[in-house]
Amino acid sequence: MSDHVYRLSEIVGSSTTSVDDAIRTAVRKASETVRNIEWFQTQEIRGQVVDGDVGYFQVTMKIGFRVDE
Amino acid sequence: MSDHVYRLSEIVGSSTTSVDDAIRTAVRKASETVRNIEWFQTQEIRGQVVDGDVGYFQVTMKIGFRVDE
Amino acid sequence: MSDHVYRLSEIVGSSTTSVDDAIRTAVRKASETVRNIEWFQTQEIRGQVVDGDVGYFQVTMKIGFRVDE
Amino acid sequence: MSDHVYRLSEIVGSSTTSVDDAIRTAVRKASETVRNIEWFQTQEIRGQVVDGDVGYFQVTMKIGFRVDE
Amino acid sequence: MSDHVYRLSEIVGSSTTSVDDAIRTAVRKASETVRNIEWFQTQEIRGQVVDGDVGYFQVTMKIGFRVDE
Amino acid sequence: MSDHVYRLSEIVGSSTTSVDDAIRTAVRKASETVRNIEWFQTQEIRGQVVDGDVGYFQVTMKIGFRVDE
Amino acid sequence: MSDHVYRLSEIVGSSTTSVDDAIRTAVRKASETVRNIEWFQTQEIRGQVVDGDVGYFQVTMKIGFRVDE
Amino acid sequence: MSDHVYRLSEIVGSSTTSVDDAIRTAVRKASETVRNIEWFQTQEIRGQVVDGDVGYFQVTMKIGFRVDE
Amino acid sequence: MSDHVYRLSEIVGSSTTSVDDAIRTAVRKASETVRNIEWFQTQEIRGQVVDGDVGYFQVTMKIGFRVDE
Amino acid sequence: MSDHVYRLSEIVGSSTTSVDDAIRTAVRKASETVRNIEWFQTQEIRGQVVDGDVGYFQVTMKIGFRVDE
Amino acid sequence: MSDHVYRLSEIVGSSTTSVDDAIRTAVRKASETVRNIEWFQTQEIRGQVVDGDVGYFQVTMKIGFRVDE
Amino acid sequence: MSDHVYRLSEIVGSSTTSVDDAIRTAVRKASETVRNIEWFQTQEIRGQVVDGDVGYFQVTMKIGFRVDE
Repeated sequence: MSDHVYRLSEIVGSSTTSVDDAIRTAVRKASETVRNIEWFQTQEIRGQVVDGDVGYFQVTMKIGFRVDE
Repeated sequence: MSDHVYRLSEIVGSSTTSVDDAIRTAVRKASETVRNIEWFQTQEIRGQVVDGDVGYFQVTMKIGFRVDE
Repeated sequence: MSDHVYRLSEIVGSSTTSVDDAIRTAVRKASETVRNIEWFQTQEIRGQVVDGDVGYFQVTMKIGFRVDE
Repeated sequence: MSDHVYRLSEIVGSSTTSVDDAIRTAVRKASETVRNIEWFQTQEIRGQVVDGDVGYFQVTMKIGFRVDE
Repeated sequence: MSDHVYRLSEIVGSSTTSVDDAIRTAVRKASETVRNIEWFQTQEIRGQVVDGDVGYFQVTMKIGFRVDE
Repeated sequence: MSDHVYRLSEIVGSSTTSVDDAIRTAVRKASETVRNIEWFQTQEIRGQVVDGDVGYFQVTMKIGFRVDE
Repeated sequence: MSDHVYRLSEIVGSSTTSVDDAIRTAVRKASETVRNIEWFQTQEIRGQVVDGDVGYFQVTMKIGFRVDE
Repeated sequence: MSDHVYRLSEIVGSSTTSVDDAIRTAVRKASETVRNIEWFQTQEIRGQVVDGDVGYFQVTMKIGFRVDE
Repeated sequence: MSDHVYRLSEIVGSSTTSVDDAIRTAVRKASETVRNIEWFQTQEIRGQVVDGDVGYFQVTMKIGFRVDE
Repeated sequence: MSDHVYRLSEIVGSSTTSVDDAIRTAVRKASETVRNIEWFQTQEIRGQVVDGDVGYFQVTMKIGFRVDE
Repeated sequence: MSDHVYRLSEIVGSSTTSVDDAIRTAVRKASETVRNIEWFQTQEIRGQVVDGDVGYFQVTMKIGFRVDE
Repeated sequence: MSDHVYRLSEIVGSSTTSVDDAIRTAVRKASETVRNIEWFQTQEIRGQVVDGDVGYFQVTMKIGFRVDE
């Protein structure tokens, strides 16, 4: 990381199956438009309830990416 | 959500298999006695250790439900 | 827990597959050298991104263990 | 407050007009079913955006009420 | 705690003598109406000042109780 | 919100008249360049003092918007 | 602000009408005895409930003022 | 508290005997120079260790007092 | 403290009688194996409830000790 | 700041020499692509350790900039 | 610190050269009017940006001083 | 970091000259007894005041190190 500058961007991913999947969904989606993503930091895990069960998980997280030359 | 009032209730769910399952267990159990649950917000993820391995996961979370007319 | 004294130690576990697995990895590894671990408390969930996807999950957590007589 | 015991309940009020009105709405609604409410503490102010403008304000808050003899 | 679900309720106890006594007062009062309380977590210690001395201590805390079958 | 990905952006709005107005100003300004804003979350309320009175209110908040296909 | 030193003082203002008015009341009152107040930062918004409605809003905030030569 | 303005001042009290006594010491000392103290809020409980035992308890707290006309 | 390096260790003490006693228990126990403990900082006060009353108080705290030459 | 709207962006700067230099590096780098940066707020100071010494300091911070007309 | 009472005062120091210098500036300035200052605790590090570079560093901190007999 | 387990240890370094130097002092001292330290995270910056000036800076921080096979 020596003399690079990084930026953090905050996103929310969701999934009907799991917390892990909500994280992967957000990382993959962000990677379509942002290059050089190197890490993520989970901020909040929440979700919607539908008919008395978890409808989907939502994970708010920050992704860190290197700012290119 | 226009002019509704919601209440938050804090619960702890547990599971021997996963964090996701602990969340689902708590939501389903709460739905047996509380109507109109619409969302949950995870507060803390912890668990018990038994014989050097995870015995079960415990997830403390808030559930939000609409207060009926 | 009556009149015991416990200690907390902070560790980071990682896994290429899931948050649950990162927790289990850390608890098992710690159990090799620390006796009487009774619980864990998750502090932070983060991870590395490799080629636009989650490379591995990292979970920082505290483990609590009984201090023997 | 000498030797009374109080309880705190967490609620969310909303209003299309203002933060103040969202607080009042929640306090009045809670007062229909809870007696002896004495104070409130705001936890979070958020809201929904509709067509590029504030659709309504949502205030999450705790209300404190005296537990009767 | 294996597959139980717990609820957390937030209360305020007070005492003219000590912090410990304010905690005990709140736990005993809550136990009159809530069954299966298993633990408490202190949130805030404050109090009223009367004539330049501590009038009473107030302890806000969460109590956790098992939700019965 | 099923399988959408959302982004959060942090902005500061100001107003000489009220907290509500500072929030509206920021939401409207952001809507000129960002599509699909769905919610806001207030982070901090502060302001400048001019000649012994409130000069203007400043509200720091996050806005959440859907990332388009 | 170049080479000035500032001090922060914490105050509570109240109002029967609004959050904005509670802030203004506190700033004006503080300005009667403190010179060179330049900004305020809201810490907490709470209030008293009287007869099932908001009796008054209380805003705890810090005010920042320049320390004169 | 209707239309009064209050100030908060942060102090540290200490005691060789107990947390309660450290609080009382600070409140009494502050009351010698500050009028109209109405409440306190504990911020931190710490202390010094001397020869392997608690030397004294230190309690950092805020005291709230009414600003006179 | 001039040019010393200190370490912090996190422990939990418990007592059936009081918060103060739980702190003392933890400090004394830690002093049996750790030299040069100089201070403690309370992190959390909680406890177990047994038969509708406080069973014992548990205090989580950090202890700071000088690392010897 | 009267009726302007500001945005906050989160970045990480690094330096092998000092915390101050890591802040300057991030501000200068951000200024190459963002106009009207007016302030920064430090979020976290961390760093990498190489061969038992500080390899470089990393400072995570928010920068605030005016959104142009 | 045995049976002394201390007060905490919150100040902001600034410097065009470094974080360390901003701290020293605030401590020296406060010492001109406050006696018996014994420690400081940094609360926030921020600063102003001028022409794409750090204009000055601002450090908000609390200073603790002994209240004289 | 793939499948390693890391531990975090909390230490306090001090220096009469600067924050940076306090961090370096702590890292170097810890490296004498702990192998494979890879990063540090600053927790708190404080210090002692002597004769109206900064006597020394104290930095509390966590160091992360790889747990060897």
